[in-house]
Amino acid sequence: MSAEPKLLANAIRALSMDAVEAANSGHPGMPMGMADVATVLFTEYLKYDPADPKWHDRDRFVLSAGHGSMLIYALLHLTGYERPTMEDIRNFRKLGSPCAGHPENFLLDGVEATTGPLGQGFAMAVGMAVAERHLNAVFGDDLVDHHTWVIAGDGCLMEGINHEAVGLAGHLKLGRLNVLWDDNRITIDGATDLSTSEDILARYAASGWHTVACEGHDYDSIRKALAEAKADPRPSLVACRTIIGYGAPNKQGTSATHGAALGKDEVAAARLQLVWDSEPFDLPQPIIDAWREAGRRSQKVHEDWRVRLAAHPERVEFVRRMEGRLPEGLSLRDHVAGLIANPQKVASRKASELALGAINDLLPETIGGSADLTGSNNTKTKAQKPLTADDYSGRYIYYGIREFGMAAAMNGMALHGGVIPYGGTFLVFADYCRPAIRLSALQEVRAVYVMTHDSIGLGEDGPTHQPVEHVMSLRMIPNLDVFRPADAVETAECWELALKRKNGPSLLALSRQNLPQLRDNAGENLSAKGAYRLRAAKAARKVILMATGSEVETAVAVADALEGQGIGADVVSMPCWTLFDAQDAAYRADILPDAQPEEILRVSIEAGTTLGWERYTMVSGLRIGLDRFGASAPAEDLFERFGFTAEAIVPQILEKLNNR
Amino acid sequence: MSAEPKLLANAIRALSMDAVEAANSGHPGMPMGMADVATVLFTEYLKYDPADPKWHDRDRFVLSAGHGSMLIYALLHLTGYERPTMEDIRNFRKLGSPCAGHPENFLLDGVEATTGPLGQGFAMAVGMAVAERHLNAVFGDDLVDHHTWVIAGDGCLMEGINHEAVGLAGHLKLGRLNVLWDDNRITIDGATDLSTSEDILARYAASGWHTVACEGHDYDSIRKALAEAKADPRPSLVACRTIIGYGAPNKQGTSATHGAALGKDEVAAARLQLVWDSEPFDLPQPIIDAWREAGRRSQKVHEDWRVRLAAHPERVEFVRRMEGRLPEGLSLRDHVAGLIANPQKVASRKASELALGAINDLLPETIGGSADLTGSNNTKTKAQKPLTADDYSGRYIYYGIREFGMAAAMNGMALHGGVIPYGGTFLVFADYCRPAIRLSALQEVRAVYVMTHDSIGLGEDGPTHQPVEHVMSLRMIPNLDVFRPADAVETAECWELALKRKNGPSLLALSRQNLPQLRDNAGENLSAKGAYRLRAAKAARKVILMATGSEVETAVAVADALEGQGIGADVVSMPCWTLFDAQDAAYRADILPDAQPEEILRVSIEAGTTLGWERYTMVSGLRIGLDRFGASAPAEDLFERFGFTAEAIVPQILEKLNNR
Repeated sequence: MSAEPKLLANAIRALSMDAVEAANSGHPGMPMGMADVATVLFTEYLKYDPADPKWHDRDRFVLSAGHGSMLIYALLHLTGYERPTMEDIRNFRKLGSPCAGHPENFLLDGVEATTGPLGQGFAMAVGMAVAERHLNAVFGDDLVDHHTWVIAGDGCLMEGINHEAVGLAGHLKLGRLNVLWDDNRITIDGATDLSTSEDILARYAASGWHTVACEGHDYDSIRKALAEAKADPRPSLVACRTIIGYGAPNKQGTSATHGAALGKDEVAAARLQLVWDSEPFDLPQPIIDAWREAGRRSQKVHEDWRVRLAAHPERVEFVRRMEGRLPEGLSLRDHVAGLIANPQKVASRKASELALGAINDLLPETIGGSADLTGSNNTKTKAQKPLTADDYSGRYIYYGIREFGMAAAMNGMALHGGVIPYGGTFLVFADYCRPAIRLSALQEVRAVYVMTHDSIGLGEDGPTHQPVEHVMSLRMIPNLDVFRPADAVETAECWELALKRKNGPSLLALSRQNLPQLRDNAGENLSAKGAYRLRAAKAARKVILMATGSEVETAVAVADALEGQGIGADVVSMPCWTLFDAQDAAYRADILPDAQPEEILRVSIEAGTTLGWERYTMVSGLRIGLDRFGASAPAEDLFERFGFTAEAIVPQILEKLNNR
Repeated sequence: MSAEPKLLANAIRALSMDAVEAANSGHPGMPMGMADVATVLFTEYLKYDPADPKWHDRDRFVLSAGHGSMLIYALLHLTGYERPTMEDIRNFRKLGSPCAGHPENFLLDGVEATTGPLGQGFAMAVGMAVAERHLNAVFGDDLVDHHTWVIAGDGCLMEGINHEAVGLAGHLKLGRLNVLWDDNRITIDGATDLSTSEDILARYAASGWHTVACEGHDYDSIRKALAEAKADPRPSLVACRTIIGYGAPNKQGTSATHGAALGKDEVAAARLQLVWDSEPFDLPQPIIDAWREAGRRSQKVHEDWRVRLAAHPERVEFVRRMEGRLPEGLSLRDHVAGLIANPQKVASRKASELALGAINDLLPETIGGSADLTGSNNTKTKAQKPLTADDYSGRYIYYGIREFGMAAAMNGMALHGGVIPYGGTFLVFADYCRPAIRLSALQEVRAVYVMTHDSIGLGEDGPTHQPVEHVMSLRMIPNLDVFRPADAVETAECWELALKRKNGPSLLALSRQNLPQLRDNAGENLSAKGAYRLRAAKAARKVILMATGSEVETAVAVADALEGQGIGADVVSMPCWTLFDAQDAAYRADILPDAQPEEILRVSIEAGTTLGWERYTMVSGLRIGLDRFGASAPAEDLFERFGFTAEAIVPQILEKLNNR
C-alpha cells in the first residue's frame, strides 16, 4: 500500500465529521472510532469489487450499527464505487441523496442491508452466512466461497435478537461469519456500565463462538485478530477496543460524539489532532489513490472466478438463482387442477403444505423453516432434508424458538440471493417478528411468512395465542402483501403470487381449522385481483358480503340464508387488499359498485379488528368482527360466542335492510 | 408433612393428565415433568396464603412456561385457593372456565401474570423483582421482603427477550429472583439439539447470575438447589433436569407429551406407573389434607406481617400504593394553568417532560426509564435518581438497549403493584415492544409508554426510524389507549388520563419537533373526550378538519386558509380514538354531525397510514396521510415533500368541494 493506513483511516474520519457537520445531524462517533478497523477490513481482508458491486461471490459486509452510516458511505466512495459521489456525501441526510441517515440497501450498491433498527443487521448477516454455506454445498467452492463481515455496536449486542442470532450462528457453525464489535463502552445514555454488566465474550463462547479481542486503533493488533477470526472454523466475535469519536480531542470517548455534529470548533481541533490539513470534503490525491488501489485488490480473484463460472456446468442455473429469476413459466396450475379434480377440505395451513409440496419440487431455491412449530405450521414437506452444520445442502431450518431471529435471517438470505426463504410461526407471534417484517418490506425482499392459527379459530390456547388485530395491522405495513386465503385453491394461488413477487415480502395468514373447498373451477388466478366475486347474487342483489379466510365459508352460509329469503347477496372473497386496491377503477367498481347504501348493503365478515373495514363497507355498512381479545374454548364455541355464524349475522343484516 | 412429596406431586400429574384428556387439548408434558420441583417450591419455599391471595408481601410465582397451565391450576386448587374448584379444572379450556388454555391473571387469583407468549413471563418477573427491591428500599423489611420465583422452559430461555431480561436482572443484582428452568431437552420440534448448542449456565454466569443444577425428580437434590438459590445474593438459575411427561411410560421424554392429550391408554399406563388408583379428578383425602396443610404454611408469617403493618407509621401510604389508588384529587390542573399563563412552544416530548416534572412530584410511585434514549425521550426529570443495584430507592431505570425487556419489566412492575411504571423509546420501536404492549392490554395493567419521534417529523434518521403505520396499528390493540397530543396542554391532559386509567395501558405518541401551543384556556380536560372541537368554523361550515398531534397545527393553517376564502371549517383534535368512540351519541354527533358529504366534507390529516381514517372521514371524505415509507431529510423538507402543508392540502379540499 502506498499510504499509511492511519492516513487512510483519517480520510474516513474527516468525511464523517464533515458530512455530519454539513447536515448538522448524524453520528460521527462510530465512524471515527471504527475507522482503523474498517480500514484494515476494506484494504486487506474484504473480498469485493467496486466495479461490479453485485459480484455473486463477493464477501458480504453489513454495518449493523447503521447509525454510523458515514462509515460505509466513506468506504464506498473511497474504494471507488460509482456512488456515492462526493456530491452525494455533501448532501448526506438531505432529500434525494443516497447517503440517507441510515444505510438503505435500495439506494446504494455496496449497502447489503438496510440497518439502523438495532440488532437486525447482525441477525441478517447470519442469514447471509447461511445462504452462502447452502449455495456452497449446492454449487461448490468454485462458485461460492465467501465470508460475511459485520460491524456491530453495543446496541446490536444488547438487543434480544442478538441472543437468537448468536444461538443460531453458533448452532449452525457458521465459521465464515465474523463480527467486529465496536467495543467503545459508550451508549447514548452514557457509559455501558449504566445498564449492563455482561461478560460479552463469555456469552458468545457459551454459544460456540470463537472470540478474540484487539486494540482497535493498533493496526497489528487488528490484523492479528482479523486473521484469527477468518481462520477459525467457528463464527467469530472480534472485540475491537476503540474510543468513540477518536480524533476529536475534547469529545472523544464520550456519548457526546454519538449522535450529533461535533461543532465547528471541535472539528477544527480534530483536524489539528489528526494532522489533517485538507478542506472539508477535499481529500489528498495520494490518499484517494491508495484507497482506489485497495478497491482493486480483488480484481484478479474476481477475474479468476469469472473464468470458473464461464466454464461451470451449472452456470445457467446458478445465475438464474442468484438473479432471483423463477424458472420459465413457473405455475401451480397443475396443483390447482388437482385440487379442482379432487377437492380438499383441509385447514389452509395444510393446504399450504400441499402447495409447498409442488413448490419445493419446482423451485430448488426455497429454504423453509419454522420457529419450533414445524408440525403446526406445516412448513416442512417430505422431501426436505434439514439444513444443519453437518449438511448445509438441506432445505429446511429448525430455527428454534426464535421468531425474530428467523425473520431477520430470512431477510439476510433473501438479500444474499440465490435462495427464497419462507418461515413459519403462529400469526399472533407476527408481533415478535414485526420489526423484521417491516425491514423485509422496506428492503423489498422476497421473503414469505407462513403464519398459521390465524384467528380465534385456533381455539383452546386462548387470547394470548389468538390474533385479533394482527391481520389488519399487518395490512398497514407499506409494501407487505398480506394474504388470507379462503380455501385450498386460494392458498395455492396466494403462494404463487408470493413467489412471483420479486420486490417485496408476502405474509400468508392461515387457519388451524379445516375449511371447505369453495372454488370449483380452474383457470385464472383469481386471488391475483386481490378480491373477486366468489358467488354472484341469484335474487336481486341487495347485499355484498365481503370476507377473508375462514370467514368466507361463513359468508357463503349467510348468502344462502339471505337468498332463501329472496334477498340477493354477492359473496366477495378478499384474500389480498393491496392487490385489490391496485386494480383499475372499472374492476373495483364491478366488485363494489358505487351504489348508495340504500340500494346495496355492504357487509364485512372477518374474525378480527373491524377498524379499517370501513374502506370497503363504507361507514353505513355492517362490519362483523372482533374488537376485543378472544377467549379459551373450542373453536366452534368461540365462533358462536363471538357471533361468527349465519344465525347471528343474518338478523343483523335484515335489521339493517329494514331500517332504511 | 403427612404425605410423601412424591404422592403430592403425583396429584399434580393426575390432574394434569385428566384435565388435558377431558379437554382433548392442552400440554401435559411440562406439569408432569416439573411436578416434583413445583411440589418442593409450593410446600417448602414459596411464601403465600391461599386465604389472602393478594397479600402484599407474598412471594410472586410466575409460570413463564404458560402452556403448562395445568401445573398452576393444580397447585392453586390443591393448596386451597377458592378457585379453581375441581369443577373449574374439569372444564379446563372450555368456555367460561377460569382454567384457560394459558394462565390469565384476570381470571384467577394466584396467577400473577398472563403467560404463554414465550419469554415474557420471565421478563415480567424481572420487573416484579425490581418493584420488590424498590418498595423494600422505600418501606423497609417489615413491609416488603419477598422473593420472585419463576418456572421457565427452553422456549423462554431461547427467546431473544430472555437475553434482555437476564442482562437487566444481572446488572441490577436482583438476588431475590430465582428461576427454575425445566431442563427437559425437548421442544415442540424434537430434541433441543435440533436447534441449539448453547451452554445455558455459562451464558447466565456471564451476566452475573448464580447458577446451580439439580435432578428434577430427586427431592434432596431439588431442596439443596432451591436453598442455594434462595441464599445466593445474585439472581439464580436452577437447571432442573427433568423428563417431560414424567410418569407416562411410553411417551415420557418425547415431544409427544408436549402439546396433546396422552390418550386413554397412555393415561391408564401412567396411572399404573405412578401407582395412582384414583378415578379422574378424584383425589385421595390424605393427599388433599397434606396439600391444604402446605397451603397454610405461611399463615403465621402472614399474621406477623399484618401486625407489623398495623403498627407501621407509613401504613396508609403503603396500602394506597399497593392498591393502586392515586392520591385524593390528583390533578395536573395547576400545571395546565401554568401553561395557559405561559404558553410553551415545545416538542410534545418536551411537554411530556414538563408534565412529568409535576407528576413525579405528586406521585411518589412512578418509576420512569428509557431504553437508552433518555435525552431523546425526555423521560427523566431532574429530581429522579437512578434505580441501581446500589440504591433501589431510585425512580429512574437505565434499561439499556432493551425495548422489549423494558416493556415486559414494566408489566411486571405494574402487576406487582405499588409502583406505576413508564418507559420510553422511539415510536418506531414500538414494534420491538409490541408483544409486551399487547400483554399490558390483555392483563389490564397501568403501564405508560412514552413513544417519541412519532412521525416523519423526526427527519434525517430516515425510514427505518420514521413511524408510518405505527399509530394506527397500535390503535387496533384492544384495551390500549393511544394518545397523540397536539400541544403542551393536551400532553398534560393525556398524561393525566393515562395515570387515572387503572385497568389498562396507555401509549403517548410524541413529537420530536416543536409544536405551538394551540390551547389557550384552562378548565375541563378536553382530551378526556377523545376528540373535541378545537376551533369552530367562522364562516358557514363546509369542512371538518380532523387531525392528531403535530398535524393539528397544519389543520389550523388549513382552516385559516379556507376561512380566508369564506369556507367555514371546524378543527377537531382527536388525541385518543378509543375515548371518542366511548362518548355518547349526542356528543359524537355534535363533533361529527351526521350530514351528507355534500353538505360537510370531512378531512383527516395525520402523517401516517390513512387506512382506518375512513371510520371518521367516511369513504367520501378526504384523507391526508402517508401510505409509504418515509425518507431521510430535514423534517420541514419531508412535510413538504409528502404534502403536509396547507399549500398542498387546501387545493385538494377545494377540488373535492367543487366536484360535488
